[in-house]
Amino acid sequence: VESQDGDFSLSVRGTVQQDSDFFIDDNNGNPANTNGDDLNNNFYMRRVRPTFTGTVWKYVDWRIMPDFAMGTTRLFDAYADLRYFRAASLAAGKFKAPVSLERLQSASALTFTERGFPTQLAPNHDIGFMLHGEFDRPGGPETPRSYNLYQFPEFFAYQVGIFDGTVNNGNIDSANNDSKQLEARIFAHPFQSSGFEAVEGLGFGIAGSWGHPNDASTPTYATPGQQTMFRYASAARIDGTQYRVYPQMYWNWGPFGLIGEYAVSQQRVANQTVTNGQVGPRTKNTSQIIENDYAWNITASYVLTGEDNVFQGQGIRPRHAFNPFEGNWGAFQIAARWSDISFSDNVFTNVAKAGSKTPVYAYADPRQAVQNATNWSLGVNWWLNQNVKLMADYSQTSFQGGAGVYNAKGQLTNEVADRETEKAFISRVQVSF
Amino acid sequence: VESQDGDFSLSVRGTVQQDSDFFIDDNNGNPANTNGDDLNNNFYMRRVRPTFTGTVWKYVDWRIMPDFAMGTTRLFDAYADLRYFRAASLAAGKFKAPVSLERLQSASALTFTERGFPTQLAPNHDIGFMLHGEFDRPGGPETPRSYNLYQFPEFFAYQVGIFDGTVNNGNIDSANNDSKQLEARIFAHPFQSSGFEAVEGLGFGIAGSWGHPNDASTPTYATPGQQTMFRYASAARIDGTQYRVYPQMYWNWGPFGLIGEYAVSQQRVANQTVTNGQVGPRTKNTSQIIENDYAWNITASYVLTGEDNVFQGQGIRPRHAFNPFEGNWGAFQIAARWSDISFSDNVFTNVAKAGSKTPVYAYADPRQAVQNATNWSLGVNWWLNQNVKLMADYSQTSFQGGAGVYNAKGQLTNEVADRETEKAFISRVQVSF
Amino acid sequence: VESQDGDFSLSVRGTVQQDSDFFIDDNNGNPANTNGDDLNNNFYMRRVRPTFTGTVWKYVDWRIMPDFAMGTTRLFDAYADLRYFRAASLAAGKFKAPVSLERLQSASALTFTERGFPTQLAPNHDIGFMLHGEFDRPGGPETPRSYNLYQFPEFFAYQVGIFDGTVNNGNIDSANNDSKQLEARIFAHPFQSSGFEAVEGLGFGIAGSWGHPNDASTPTYATPGQQTMFRYASAARIDGTQYRVYPQMYWNWGPFGLIGEYAVSQQRVANQTVTNGQVGPRTKNTSQIIENDYAWNITASYVLTGEDNVFQGQGIRPRHAFNPFEGNWGAFQIAARWSDISFSDNVFTNVAKAGSKTPVYAYADPRQAVQNATNWSLGVNWWLNQNVKLMADYSQTSFQGGAGVYNAKGQLTNEVADRETEKAFISRVQVSF
Repeated sequence: VESQDGDFSLSVRGTVQQDSDFFIDDNNGNPANTNGDDLNNNFYMRRVRPTFTGTVWKYVDWRIMPDFAMGTTRLFDAYADLRYFRAASLAAGKFKAPVSLERLQSASALTFTERGFPTQLAPNHDIGFMLHGEFDRPGGPETPRSYNLYQFPEFFAYQVGIFDGTVNNGNIDSANNDSKQLEARIFAHPFQSSGFEAVEGLGFGIAGSWGHPNDASTPTYATPGQQTMFRYASAARIDGTQYRVYPQMYWNWGPFGLIGEYAVSQQRVANQTVTNGQVGPRTKNTSQIIENDYAWNITASYVLTGEDNVFQGQGIRPRHAFNPFEGNWGAFQIAARWSDISFSDNVFTNVAKAGSKTPVYAYADPRQAVQNATNWSLGVNWWLNQNVKLMADYSQTSFQGGAGVYNAKGQLTNEVADRETEKAFISRVQVSF
Repeated sequence: VESQDGDFSLSVRGTVQQDSDFFIDDNNGNPANTNGDDLNNNFYMRRVRPTFTGTVWKYVDWRIMPDFAMGTTRLFDAYADLRYFRAASLAAGKFKAPVSLERLQSASALTFTERGFPTQLAPNHDIGFMLHGEFDRPGGPETPRSYNLYQFPEFFAYQVGIFDGTVNNGNIDSANNDSKQLEARIFAHPFQSSGFEAVEGLGFGIAGSWGHPNDASTPTYATPGQQTMFRYASAARIDGTQYRVYPQMYWNWGPFGLIGEYAVSQQRVANQTVTNGQVGPRTKNTSQIIENDYAWNITASYVLTGEDNVFQGQGIRPRHAFNPFEGNWGAFQIAARWSDISFSDNVFTNVAKAGSKTPVYAYADPRQAVQNATNWSLGVNWWLNQNVKLMADYSQTSFQGGAGVYNAKGQLTNEVADRETEKAFISRVQVSF
Repeated sequence: VESQDGDFSLSVRGTVQQDSDFFIDDNNGNPANTNGDDLNNNFYMRRVRPTFTGTVWKYVDWRIMPDFAMGTTRLFDAYADLRYFRAASLAAGKFKAPVSLERLQSASALTFTERGFPTQLAPNHDIGFMLHGEFDRPGGPETPRSYNLYQFPEFFAYQVGIFDGTVNNGNIDSANNDSKQLEARIFAHPFQSSGFEAVEGLGFGIAGSWGHPNDASTPTYATPGQQTMFRYASAARIDGTQYRVYPQMYWNWGPFGLIGEYAVSQQRVANQTVTNGQVGPRTKNTSQIIENDYAWNITASYVLTGEDNVFQGQGIRPRHAFNPFEGNWGAFQIAARWSDISFSDNVFTNVAKAGSKTPVYAYADPRQAVQNATNWSLGVNWWLNQNVKLMADYSQTSFQGGAGVYNAKGQLTNEVADRETEKAFISRVQVSF
């Protein structure tokens, strides 16, 4: 809903998502929760986001979006976008980092309830300044202006920004050190309005980040069932040069849609202690390693009812809204996904003294952090109308490592086992407008 | 305020309540606060709730309502209600649990500043799915559709839902175990449009819940003056079959109004420890008891200025809004209430070894948890207009147990005393629209 | 944006401020952060405030304003204002305390990114009741009614209220003791509509507070670069008679503007312990002192582009909004400020036993709390239009005390050093509407 007043506008929008997670085959007598056993079947609000957005004086867009879900309140978006020049707009504030493609897709348009693994290695929401520009195909039609910071589909677009720099998967509210992070992305739909129908909806690009975080706290990573599968050791910090590279693409051809993304992430992890000296207490790296992580994701979907598959906006627009009294059923979409994430071997380095019987994992304990996770998912989405979507996914994730073994006395042994395969039915009821 | 656009609507609404609590006769030299002495006279915001609600595509209602009062931010409502069929609508999300009648009355329509004791034994806001239907009197006029999940007055209505299952008085955001809770309610206004004027506004019904919580954390209960009067022992958990039964009624006849409710609640309380074993650390019940609690409430009120007393919506609608320049005074309502709550004796079981001089209360310490509380209240409400209400209540609550006695050295003795009678003047300034 | 419906109105408004703090000359090898060294250069959201405000039934204004910035969510405003009589309106709820003048200026109209030191000795947002009235010049024109609780410029205005009573700089949500605080303020624009153009925009007044807090927790004070420069000892409490006096003025003459304020604050600080006795555990003052603090601030500014300098509302209104395509540049303002704060010597009293080598600071440790801070700032504000402002400040603050010295073993010595001079470039991007 929108009220218009010349060059001013204000919209109140919102997204409500209620999720239901049911885990099967998760009662195998292993240690509760920590090894992937005894997971809680759960009804919960995944996203509750009243959104305020608008334009002042024709050229300045702004947006405020908090989230009240998951038992906490967090700010996701709060920015001003000075769009005087379409080739060089300047956004300032808190918004989605221009790195992972799937992250840039609206949460209400997602094909599966949770995004693939590559988004977890990328920054989530970051604070800073971003220069961005969108260009039309030379000689082609002008793309209509949208309110979004990231517009799809545009012939060519770039974003380059300086940010506080979050750790992987991080959503930060202030910097904990002087170092800032550069994030950049280019993306193109080269065949837009080209007449080659099959590839008009093909977009690809590459994004990346470069920074030098200092004593930054470590992230955790979660399974598609929202269970923590990787946590760093408590004394570990991200400290030193960090970069990410994200080749990315999507392709929509009529009812068919494909999203693919690859992620390379390198960071330095330090084992830190505090030392005293003439300059007072200071942190010191006792040891450190370089960690290389990789992830990829490929998602394919098909709209059975024939509507166009889309990446942007709030997703698929059914030709006819569901109305049982008029025999209209909305749109049905089926989808499949394969996604994988691998963590560097040296993040599991045992730093115990030679001869010690008990391992000391200074960076990550392989009994609490998986080395690899592979997920495949199948899903059905019923778009009752443009604003209401019911989703049902089956998601299966198998792991290497990540689990401990207890002896008869209930003591944790040195053995590293595989976390139990996660088999989850996840459904969602969504209203988004 | 509402903007209409065919089958779509969006309303921004809100409730602001500022409360003032003044306690009298609360400086008797007993231990501060814990025994009901030295209570803080307090100005505070009781509810601050901007509310976003609307309809999309004619048949789907939604609502988002956070609360910013009491120094914290919590989500109260976030749901979608698929109302294609009036006899069988499906709501999904977080909303008021269909158990206690007084809970279902809007916070802005309440007769007294705080609800009676029965609501404390019921779930507050729960997450899940609820099927509900409303039916008109056969041959009678059609009740106009409202945006509310719970509609009053309807000839007959039912709600049945499956929820995460909160503990008593709980407002949860996710499940801590697999077990779900069934909640159901039926309610009728059998004499609606019957021509028997005295009982047209009589509604009654029954509600209940059934579940099997596992290792759930314990609730606390508060006095009408918002002081904690009952807390469980720290190792106590709600663990095992739990049910509630809530016969309920209200009756409005012109300016006269009556609300009555009875609550029976049974739950199993366990004294838990953690044990180690082949399957890792697990909780174990060292001992357990069955707890039966009872509460009831009866509230009567009368609108001196003659307007109709109502249960639903935002409350009484004055014939003339207060306007001192035109000699209009709004509406005045007087009210009285009697409410009581009793806790099972066995929740105060002393599990100390025979012969021990010091009691061990594994479930609830009778020096920190009352056995019984009885409240009577008198109130005057001045409805300046439909949206602004000033309330002034006197509330007196007497207790059995709940207080400790200290010896001359300042040590807590084994003696159980009665918590001091709470005498509170509570006033409220409310704007709600 | 506003929707009008007779005597009802509802506005959705908002303020977004993204700040960037860069500290220079802050790497001098001193203990990190605690002494003012190694400060984090930081992009952060300073204010993110969706605001809901309106009027019901012509005479009752209300407002709800939470803030989602700084990684937390807090309620700032939530009140009802019963404005039946312009000479005696009654506000109830949470709102800005009527003490510091600069506090009453809207956050979006500020000349510098942070307010001067006097505001830190005043209550911030308090909860209670306030009677207030505004009067026109006898025979003069009637000032148009505004939605704000505090209106500028009015010929004469008074506010007098009873509040929970926050500590200095405090923003509270409930009272921790019975004692309430009286806050009052008078303010006048005596030459308004007088024909003496130079002084028509001169306003001055005086405000103050009087209360008797009991065991209240202590505040902290921050530098203009948002770094903590003063913290009390952990066992210190504000306990006993407290008053504040705030002479205050501002003067606008065409593009020139001046704001000046002086603050005197007296409070009693106690060193508390808990003792046991017949009445159970109670706090006791082991020792106590009277603390007198002083602060002042003078801010001058000039609008280079000739627009009127204003104190009220959202600030300066450029004659022409920035539009590079039409050669319009908006408004430019330059500003300078001098501000100072001094803390009582006796708050740094050493209560160690005679002969002890190690000092015991029961109220405030001079190695963690400065005795004096002096700030000067220069700033440039570019008002692109009435709703968008870019700010760039240089702020330099020098300190007496506030820093510790470490010996070669890294132990804190008894020596008190001066906290490092803070040299900060602070910029802001603001959208406010």
